[in-house]
Amino acid sequence: MSLYQINYNFHGYSTPTKKHSKVKAIITEVAGYADVAKQIIELAVNGAAQNRSYRRLTDFTDTIGNRVSGSHNLEMAIKYMYNALKQDGLDVYLEPVKIPHWIRGNESAEMVLPRAKRLAILGLSSSVATPPEGIEAEVLVVQSFEELKKRASEAQGKIVVFNQPFVSYGETVAYRLNGASEAAKLGAVATLIRSITPFSINSPHTGMQSYQNGVKQIPTACITLEDAELMQRMAQRGQKIVVRLTMDAKSLPAADSFNTVAEIKGWQHPEQVVLLSGHLDSWDVGQGAMDDGGGAMISWEALSLIRDLGLRPRRTLRTVLWTAEEQGGVGAQQYYDLHKVNISNFDLVMESDTGTFAPVALQFTGSGAARKVMEEVVKLLAPINTTKLEKHGEGTDISPWMQAGVPGASLHVADSRYFWFHHSEGDTMTVQNPRDMDLCSALWAVVAFVVGDLQDMLPR
Amino acid sequence: MSLYQINYNFHGYSTPTKKHSKVKAIITEVAGYADVAKQIIELAVNGAAQNRSYRRLTDFTDTIGNRVSGSHNLEMAIKYMYNALKQDGLDVYLEPVKIPHWIRGNESAEMVLPRAKRLAILGLSSSVATPPEGIEAEVLVVQSFEELKKRASEAQGKIVVFNQPFVSYGETVAYRLNGASEAAKLGAVATLIRSITPFSINSPHTGMQSYQNGVKQIPTACITLEDAELMQRMAQRGQKIVVRLTMDAKSLPAADSFNTVAEIKGWQHPEQVVLLSGHLDSWDVGQGAMDDGGGAMISWEALSLIRDLGLRPRRTLRTVLWTAEEQGGVGAQQYYDLHKVNISNFDLVMESDTGTFAPVALQFTGSGAARKVMEEVVKLLAPINTTKLEKHGEGTDISPWMQAGVPGASLHVADSRYFWFHHSEGDTMTVQNPRDMDLCSALWAVVAFVVGDLQDMLPR
Ligand SMILES: [Zn+2]
Ligand SMILES: [Zn+2]
Repeated sequence: MSLYQINYNFHGYSTPTKKHSKVKAIITEVAGYADVAKQIIELAVNGAAQNRSYRRLTDFTDTIGNRVSGSHNLEMAIKYMYNALKQDGLDVYLEPVKIPHWIRGNESAEMVLPRAKRLAILGLSSSVATPPEGIEAEVLVVQSFEELKKRASEAQGKIVVFNQPFVSYGETVAYRLNGASEAAKLGAVATLIRSITPFSINSPHTGMQSYQNGVKQIPTACITLEDAELMQRMAQRGQKIVVRLTMDAKSLPAADSFNTVAEIKGWQHPEQVVLLSGHLDSWDVGQGAMDDGGGAMISWEALSLIRDLGLRPRRTLRTVLWTAEEQGGVGAQQYYDLHKVNISNFDLVMESDTGTFAPVALQFTGSGAARKVMEEVVKLLAPINTTKLEKHGEGTDISPWMQAGVPGASLHVADSRYFWFHHSEGDTMTVQNPRDMDLCSALWAVVAFVVGDLQDMLPR
Repeated sequence: MSLYQINYNFHGYSTPTKKHSKVKAIITEVAGYADVAKQIIELAVNGAAQNRSYRRLTDFTDTIGNRVSGSHNLEMAIKYMYNALKQDGLDVYLEPVKIPHWIRGNESAEMVLPRAKRLAILGLSSSVATPPEGIEAEVLVVQSFEELKKRASEAQGKIVVFNQPFVSYGETVAYRLNGASEAAKLGAVATLIRSITPFSINSPHTGMQSYQNGVKQIPTACITLEDAELMQRMAQRGQKIVVRLTMDAKSLPAADSFNTVAEIKGWQHPEQVVLLSGHLDSWDVGQGAMDDGGGAMISWEALSLIRDLGLRPRRTLRTVLWTAEEQGGVGAQQYYDLHKVNISNFDLVMESDTGTFAPVALQFTGSGAARKVMEEVVKLLAPINTTKLEKHGEGTDISPWMQAGVPGASLHVADSRYFWFHHSEGDTMTVQNPRDMDLCSALWAVVAFVVGDLQDMLPR
């Protein structure tokens, strides 16, 4: 049965009466979706779709592995998903994007003084290589940019080790992003940056870094929390630390890739869109199951659930699986540039990119009037106990739309361990849980369907 | 000031009166140590010795690194500790022990089918090498010895992957210890065993394994929880898995080593001994800070605290830092064989080898009468809120004494994450905490001093 033969408007009953105020009308209208919300939730959590998004994620990440920007694996991943979405009966198309292509290559680091010790590292994306024989230099350990500034005269010719404490990802990631250029300005020959995580089993974490224009590009990698602390203690004792760093990383010309798009077309306003999303690329470590295979899969699953129930909303539900998010939202930026001409038709943009653990709340950014509507929508999630609407829907990939005034929503999950695994070899299926993914999928599907089916778009 | 010029019996007042029952007498006698217990605790936790055992552990493990049986590092560690204990004014001597000498060498494993993937491994101590070109073979995944038995006919020529769930260390470690021989009996060419841990960031854990007599010796290593689960899922899908394993491990002739012994001699019964202990060796990963640098350091710190306060007990307090515990209590077994002739003089044997996190209780094994005494002793620990006496004092290194009837005590600490780091690169100073070590040291010192100073030895 093709979805597009169905033309079933099941809630004529939700048309507001004239005497209701606008607010009362919307309360009544949304409340009318209680049954359909229950059906979606039942299907996802206890029904035939139980464990499906987890199973899909497992099949996908076990088959493909990780999928870094520019890699053959990412190409394979897009093909895999294109076929899977087609087979699932959805309307699927690809939108070409040019994406960065950086290759890690071989890399290693070892402490030479005060004693020999191998350091676990992960080079940072876009880092230049060392000379083939490596860089062997004395280490300067600092705990902050402020300390580096104070000790500017000591940095010349050194490998600067940043041992910044983890405060929050948003705050602490500045060291990974800017550490190399800040140290290079002072004559440093390389930087080793404590991984951006509150917890470690000697686990290095990779990620993006940005060279500043006009500043010498020096090799840069993340080390473990443990090794950063070790070198800090050695420096405090006045011990001379020497490290040899070898990286043959290289940047190649931009590669061809795609944003992967799947839709259920709206029956009344097909040009109007509720966008659900996650990114398909990952880092070149682990399986990219948590970041962001899970987000991609629940954004697919939401459409499957709606399709399985024979539902079709007024507006188009569009799932976009971004490419090259990890390189700075490259696919998403291009998508925005291409489609912003239709910005008035974008009703709500949704992104899941902080894990698909047990859902806690929906995060939402929009006008006060839109928030009023969304507060009613999340009440429909009572059967899975996630009726909280929080401030600050956000996400790298939906931010261009949100900055331009489109309402945005993201998933708040119980993610206390998210950064333990993030961008590390520990980002695997082992951290995922089928029931949590069912709950995320149900939430995602209910929100997308109801917003996409209301008589009016969310007020800006 | 030398300790041995002090002859200060500060608690003549604790002599029991004739009219007291034996039990009442001991209650009164032990209660008489309340002030000295407070002094020890105050010195350790808030006084001049605050953070000292942590600092000692940091200096030691940062300087030496890990210390596997037979290594140059272990030799250096013993020299380091010999000098440090001497400098601390203790009576120090070394007792020679022959210990196993196994070298890991280079090792690697990669999945070849169904897709290429590097597997993080740690070879197991005493494993034989693969041929230089490695072993490439199809994988048989099993979740238990029972499943292996049922599928015996499938094992021939395969690499057997054990993906046993973690139940408890004591139970699950059987797979690491016996996996290779059990699989070899069925014609397997190598074994890869899921690391013995409840949690992982793709972290492999090493440890001992034992070849059974008369069974072909095949190479054996631990893989990560994540990779074991991955291969399980692939096998469940019916996918053919092929892995290439390369290990150039080798066993060398037994090496010379030492148990390191430091004492405060008893003023009244110097031949009677309360023994405190931890092991100085570790695995060849991480820093061996938790396993068992911490246990060694609090066993030293206990003597330092007692010495600092100018105390000298009736009996000898003897700290033994075992060698080659990880190879099966080799140093401890030799110590027992050498000293068992004096077993009647061993009052209490104590071991700390499950971490020096926040202390929860003292664990004790001994007669009912001895337990009555110990129940009074732990009451002295009220200032640090660790007055619980639990059953089952235990430890690899004190077990020969305990099996022969000597009362034994061990430290129960808040160790919920102990096995996350155990035998892995994550066993570093980062998991240690100075205050927790102060508390452990205080507990250790109070128990050792009071038991060593009571008029009578603990009843057997
Ligand atoms: Zn992400
Ligand atoms: Zn141990």
